[in-house]
Amino acid sequence: MSARIFSGEREAAGIDPANRGLAYGDGLFETMRVHRAGVPLWSRHLARLREGARRLRIALPSADFIEARIADAIAGCDAGVLKLLLTRGEGGRGYAPPAAAEPVWLLSRHALPASPAAGLRLHWCEMRLASQPALAGIKHCNRLEQVLARAEAEAAGCDEGLLRGIAGDAIGATSANLLVLHGGRWLTPPVDACGVAGVLRGWLLERGLAEVADLAPDAVESADAVALCNAVRGILPVASLGARAWAPHPAFNELRSGLAMAYPMFAEDRGAA
Amino acid sequence: MSARIFSGEREAAGIDPANRGLAYGDGLFETMRVHRAGVPLWSRHLARLREGARRLRIALPSADFIEARIADAIAGCDAGVLKLLLTRGEGGRGYAPPAAAEPVWLLSRHALPASPAAGLRLHWCEMRLASQPALAGIKHCNRLEQVLARAEAEAAGCDEGLLRGIAGDAIGATSANLLVLHGGRWLTPPVDACGVAGVLRGWLLERGLAEVADLAPDAVESADAVALCNAVRGILPVASLGARAWAPHPAFNELRSGLAMAYPMFAEDRGAA
Repeated sequence: MSARIFSGEREAAGIDPANRGLAYGDGLFETMRVHRAGVPLWSRHLARLREGARRLRIALPSADFIEARIADAIAGCDAGVLKLLLTRGEGGRGYAPPAAAEPVWLLSRHALPASPAAGLRLHWCEMRLASQPALAGIKHCNRLEQVLARAEAEAAGCDEGLLRGIAGDAIGATSANLLVLHGGRWLTPPVDACGVAGVLRGWLLERGLAEVADLAPDAVESADAVALCNAVRGILPVASLGARAWAPHPAFNELRSGLAMAYPMFAEDRGAA
Repeated sequence: MSARIFSGEREAAGIDPANRGLAYGDGLFETMRVHRAGVPLWSRHLARLREGARRLRIALPSADFIEARIADAIAGCDAGVLKLLLTRGEGGRGYAPPAAAEPVWLLSRHALPASPAAGLRLHWCEMRLASQPALAGIKHCNRLEQVLARAEAEAAGCDEGLLRGIAGDAIGATSANLLVLHGGRWLTPPVDACGVAGVLRGWLLERGLAEVADLAPDAVESADAVALCNAVRGILPVASLGARAWAPHPAFNELRSGLAMAYPMFAEDRGAA
């Protein structure tokens, strides 16, 4: 992977072994779709990054500087993925965040993931997401739950894993939010105790195209349709969850058409992460 | 910080930006006391590292190789701290652990922390430790809870923060286990839902010098004495927790003397991390 690395607003040569992202996952990230040298949903990515930086008290370089470096990084890129990783910076041994750490952050470009041939096959993970309101919603770098859950899904031969919280309700997939169709309405679980507030989920909620609801496993399995969404892949249909299978549903195409009106790059199925 | 970096059993020049420790906190660490070019409690550190590697399915270089590199790193060191950081290695974008990742690991030496002048001042943290049995006990690198809790303790002008679990019981300090004296017995909270199974805590339990018990906040505040322990500092007395203060207690000196019989480097108070 090639990446550009910055310490505050200066370019850096490499990652210091004392980087706190490496030591403690003390950082945040955003994974973004690149389309015709632009980043759809950028303002939402930036807002989530700012919210994460506020909650973790990580310094954030100026948005102007970040945006200029992103423009450099995606110049000439017609379609791809851009990852921004923001760490608190370097520090000595010990958990205490240094008072004046210079944030170290990285930009890396990646290929757009391959399109799945059909709807996604989902696996109910054994791994549960712990309840931690202090970290819920933001895209921080403490992701061992997702790493282990994704390994479970792969071991089951599935495309993605569906995670439950401690109370048993569905929360989301390892790298996408969950959308569940009931009575003509798309529902998505709350992310105030665990899970990530996906930027595309946020867009759907604000447009009134989805609404937040608690979703017990039964409510997922009895749904008329199920989909996953994230800012890289857009909205993808789910074909199965364990033994439960779904046929394509017209409401899915409607939902994706609604998204494609605003963001044409998501008009068709372009890939699964 | 200077560190030696290894990829499997080869020395590496630096940290790749695609390191999964950096991306996801996908790793483990051990922080060890160095004494006369040796590591007291090493076999316990190695056992915990192995247990963590097994649970996270991270490859571990051979113990012989690790031990030889540690011997290099601490040659001539009379007293200090050695940190071993083991990451899953490098990977592309995405949570799925690469099937054949070469683990990347670091050894770094640090100064022994300064001795506190008196007993430790503890702060009850607002931050609660989330329940996550899949990660409890091991010393993984998802440590944002500890980072934020330590910042709380520092903001309160205290030496350490005491963390409760979701149910409200005390679990431990950000970087030490908790020992609480009741009726002449030292008690320490379970670490099967959250918290770290400290190597010194393990030694005390096996020797019958402490025992595991649930400890509500009241049970901590009503204790005859309170202490913290870890593998760097040994056992340190606690002087206060919020408004509650404790005078030095003879049982503390007894406990430390018991430890010092086996590990003389912990005979006296050598520092607070």
